[in-house]
Amino acid sequence: MRQIHTDLAMEAFQASGQENLPGVQINQWEESGVTMTEVMVETEEAAGILGKPIGSYLTLEAPMLRERDPDVRIAVSNLLGEEIGRMLAALGIEKPDGENPPILVVGLGNRLITPDSLGPMTVDRVLVTRHILRELPEFADRRMRSVCAIAPGVLGITGVETVEMVESLSAKLKPAAVVCVDSLSARSSSRIGIAIQMTDAGIQPGSGVGNHRRALTKSSLGCEVVAIGMPTVIYAATLARDAMEYLGGSEESQQHEQAFADIERELLQCSMGEMIVTPREIDSMVEDAAQVIAMGINKALQPELSDEEIATMMD
Amino acid sequence: MRQIHTDLAMEAFQASGQENLPGVQINQWEESGVTMTEVMVETEEAAGILGKPIGSYLTLEAPMLRERDPDVRIAVSNLLGEEIGRMLAALGIEKPDGENPPILVVGLGNRLITPDSLGPMTVDRVLVTRHILRELPEFADRRMRSVCAIAPGVLGITGVETVEMVESLSAKLKPAAVVCVDSLSARSSSRIGIAIQMTDAGIQPGSGVGNHRRALTKSSLGCEVVAIGMPTVIYAATLARDAMEYLGGSEESQQHEQAFADIERELLQCSMGEMIVTPREIDSMVEDAAQVIAMGINKALQPELSDEEIATMMD
Amino acid sequence: MRQIHTDLAMEAFQASGQENLPGVQINQWEESGVTMTEVMVETEEAAGILGKPIGSYLTLEAPMLRERDPDVRIAVSNLLGEEIGRMLAALGIEKPDGENPPILVVGLGNRLITPDSLGPMTVDRVLVTRHILRELPEFADRRMRSVCAIAPGVLGITGVETVEMVESLSAKLKPAAVVCVDSLSARSSSRIGIAIQMTDAGIQPGSGVGNHRRALTKSSLGCEVVAIGMPTVIYAATLARDAMEYLGGSEESQQHEQAFADIERELLQCSMGEMIVTPREIDSMVEDAAQVIAMGINKALQPELSDEEIATMMD
Amino acid sequence: MRQIHTDLAMEAFQASGQENLPGVQINQWEESGVTMTEVMVETEEAAGILGKPIGSYLTLEAPMLRERDPDVRIAVSNLLGEEIGRMLAALGIEKPDGENPPILVVGLGNRLITPDSLGPMTVDRVLVTRHILRELPEFADRRMRSVCAIAPGVLGITGVETVEMVESLSAKLKPAAVVCVDSLSARSSSRIGIAIQMTDAGIQPGSGVGNHRRALTKSSLGCEVVAIGMPTVIYAATLARDAMEYLGGSEESQQHEQAFADIERELLQCSMGEMIVTPREIDSMVEDAAQVIAMGINKALQPELSDEEIATMMD
Repeated sequence: MRQIHTDLAMEAFQASGQENLPGVQINQWEESGVTMTEVMVETEEAAGILGKPIGSYLTLEAPMLRERDPDVRIAVSNLLGEEIGRMLAALGIEKPDGENPPILVVGLGNRLITPDSLGPMTVDRVLVTRHILRELPEFADRRMRSVCAIAPGVLGITGVETVEMVESLSAKLKPAAVVCVDSLSARSSSRIGIAIQMTDAGIQPGSGVGNHRRALTKSSLGCEVVAIGMPTVIYAATLARDAMEYLGGSEESQQHEQAFADIERELLQCSMGEMIVTPREIDSMVEDAAQVIAMGINKALQPELSDEEIATMMD
Repeated sequence: MRQIHTDLAMEAFQASGQENLPGVQINQWEESGVTMTEVMVETEEAAGILGKPIGSYLTLEAPMLRERDPDVRIAVSNLLGEEIGRMLAALGIEKPDGENPPILVVGLGNRLITPDSLGPMTVDRVLVTRHILRELPEFADRRMRSVCAIAPGVLGITGVETVEMVESLSAKLKPAAVVCVDSLSARSSSRIGIAIQMTDAGIQPGSGVGNHRRALTKSSLGCEVVAIGMPTVIYAATLARDAMEYLGGSEESQQHEQAFADIERELLQCSMGEMIVTPREIDSMVEDAAQVIAMGINKALQPELSDEEIATMMD
Repeated sequence: MRQIHTDLAMEAFQASGQENLPGVQINQWEESGVTMTEVMVETEEAAGILGKPIGSYLTLEAPMLRERDPDVRIAVSNLLGEEIGRMLAALGIEKPDGENPPILVVGLGNRLITPDSLGPMTVDRVLVTRHILRELPEFADRRMRSVCAIAPGVLGITGVETVEMVESLSAKLKPAAVVCVDSLSARSSSRIGIAIQMTDAGIQPGSGVGNHRRALTKSSLGCEVVAIGMPTVIYAATLARDAMEYLGGSEESQQHEQAFADIERELLQCSMGEMIVTPREIDSMVEDAAQVIAMGINKALQPELSDEEIATMMD
Repeated sequence: MRQIHTDLAMEAFQASGQENLPGVQINQWEESGVTMTEVMVETEEAAGILGKPIGSYLTLEAPMLRERDPDVRIAVSNLLGEEIGRMLAALGIEKPDGENPPILVVGLGNRLITPDSLGPMTVDRVLVTRHILRELPEFADRRMRSVCAIAPGVLGITGVETVEMVESLSAKLKPAAVVCVDSLSARSSSRIGIAIQMTDAGIQPGSGVGNHRRALTKSSLGCEVVAIGMPTVIYAATLARDAMEYLGGSEESQQHEQAFADIERELLQCSMGEMIVTPREIDSMVEDAAQVIAMGINKALQPELSDEEIATMMD
């Protein structure tokens, strides 16, 4: 089977062309117009075939996000908040009674490269409370959970790898969990700006839009890791290959392979950077997505605060 | 002949598949590693076939811009400055002896949509002198030409059409010429961030990345119009069609057309906005391009000032 | 009487030290915690004494804006919206039945100089409708008023004076009124970020934080002008003089004048620009103020739309 | 002696009113138009009197920075680079032969509050090399020193204290030295944007414009700390007190104290944040200063690279 570039486990499964894959469990259901697809990768062999490590992957597809309606954003963030909360609970992470330990939210990616900026932009909208609980205990509400949040930037800007930064901070803060947010790539344009994947399998080297060697896992950080992402791009080579498959069907003719190699060479001639396919309105799409995901995270991490309380504290 | 979406006259000619087209003259030469292609559209019939109005189109292709080397940027901007100067001279626009009339530089496109922001970002780097000549005549140098520059934004932000804004300002300032800068779309990925087109044919409705109905022409503005642009994107549908043509050859099979219609439908499912193909580093590519084009414009408009004098005045 | 640098008519009146000034009428009242002070300058003589042209000046002082509470911002913007609406009605500007004529909102000042950026930042948040009414009549609601909005930047950036830009656009669009927004200077620190002045007297040369020669008046633009502003700074020299007056009382000793001259000389030694007094959080203060003023303008210009409808259309 | 709010040791010494203070050594000299003042605080008693811990403080005053001339900026950054290099050498920090250990540059302050943003803006312009030396050894030049750089933001945004962040990263990276950059406050407006202080005494709680409890010292970080800063503001209360002292002379009358208390109360009525005195062009002043300081740091840390090599690598 040829490799398809996608960070979504559900697309990797679809691309396998199998209905049933040993070691993979699939569940799909719908809730208020949002399709939920859960892929559970249970064996190393299945992980190898899908190119996704063992773990649980849940994808929400919310086509109505296209309409840019504030009410829809609230509805989707409610669903997302519930599912993040469920995943944290399944990992045994309950809100502590006292101040500690905090949850550390990490925005991966590069703020200066729009398609890769979802993580930092989400972190900007996460409700941070650790400093209130520590320094203004008189303003702190026992209902608040301790949350801190960083966007460590990328290697080229700081000279420090994201992994080094998150590892050293985790060693200091000893968080209950790390929640990472990242821009993803997909195979199908119908999922750009629409699908949100969350997983307990950590962040693997080579995934994400920025292609940086990020590996944030339970074993490297010493705590549970929940990774949340939205596809912001398709790789142009993936689109070109898909276009040709529409013609060539499933047979893998030599003509087909040669044509693809030609196209791919041309796409790489633009060494300004890898060519991606993305909506023209990438800037506002990433901003909207950051808002939805941050609201979902805020609801999951602060289940005892109302939306209004969160909004007022963010202001 | 099927229509190919490109704002570059040289690509429209290539796509025609003809070696010779009545009413079109082609010249091509090289200068210090930069390929120059001049397309002169001389008859309405040729204009209809190419989808480009009568006029002269010169495209510089500078593949070495990919290397992001400051020296290369200076070299390309020197060439560009010479060619813009030549085009202005050919239109009869010489530097006036006194203060008037000014040149009005217009940055088209939307600053908030990265692939469409080349115009506003270029205008930020253009040396503006009209206010010095008018208000600080003691600092003004007789060698300076009067230049003003605006980035009128887009319809949705201001409620005023670009054309209305430029027309009303031209009526007030009575400039010798309007120099427009815009983001373009291309057919070939090898020209993204590499090619710069300049033309005396004005800006036509429906061109540019933003698809706004811009029409800035000599007849609407009452002065000569020089339009400068660089392709920042390919439309995803164009890439998909090209990918399929690699397979299908020149024959236009029905299978081909159906496959394309399917792909196009999927690409439009992402109604976050039209899908485009662009380098991942679109942000820095547009910034670099804005710098090169602005330097070229500054050299063309201020031929009697040295680069250092321009840099110091910009600071 | 020595001249006091303030853009607020109510402070100019206070500084006159008079209880009654011929040709000036003062009214003061309170409404839900907001103090309203109306200064009506009715004769040229009074205008000369106060340094404010003939017209009506209404200042809202809302000390609770300090608390940065979203509910307070909504309450103040409601009051502001009512008063702007009343001023427009008093000038005879009623919502037209058809599309025309539009209201033109102009954000004065320089987006790149934080204390001077209130105008452009407000304009970013004004609901612009003219393009919907003109181009998407099927989406247009008969309840909408036609509004367009520009932030013409400053002389040094564009080479075109704000006045030239607004005049040429007014000649083209023939608006019913121009509503200008600008950063102001005050005398008292207790009004920074708290007071909002609106006037039908136009914008005068030399006022505002940017000190640019702006003169936007009914006679220059051919339509009514409503100017709205909030003090963002006190001039440092004004603060120093006030500090010394606390000591010296009302007597104008020579020692006093000499000390002031010394202080002023030192304050001007910093030729990085005129020294101003402003809150450390100037960035967020201007952002909050822009939101309150824009909401007030939106409510005044779109009285038939609900807050939610406006918010959804802005999104 | 009353306390004067200034982060400059030289102003604290001047304010003491003494010519000679036991435990303090003063040297002053001039170099190409720049005045250098060295204050060496040698005893705890002197430290208590001046409110500055034991250590060496060198202040460069470069009034020609006001002219915003690129050549002047280069000249000042050369001097600054020499002095930073001298301070590092005096602390025993020589460029290592191999890759390790790195220098960690830390930008203190809040990027979103212009007067407090000097640190983050400087860090944006520091040449970061650690990743090149580690990952692209074939591009790495043996002449390069390993440098990494972070701007940890502020407590309210991340929930993590700057000190925690720098401590945890120092524990991981084991740098040879930490170089901190911060916005400072001064007493005299003539030093705003003009003076640059560097010290080996670390950063003390309560200094800087942001008033955050930063304490970055050799004992907390386990390595030498060099702190570099430029005053961007005077506290408004300091200006008011100075203004009154011009009148009251040295005698400390009761009338004086009462007047000051009144003024101070009024200045605090603006609870939008502490009132500061700053140039109107604070945005461009901070940007210019960040460039000069970053160039100085780059020259000090990379003495074997030419300015052009540094510029090309930054691009």
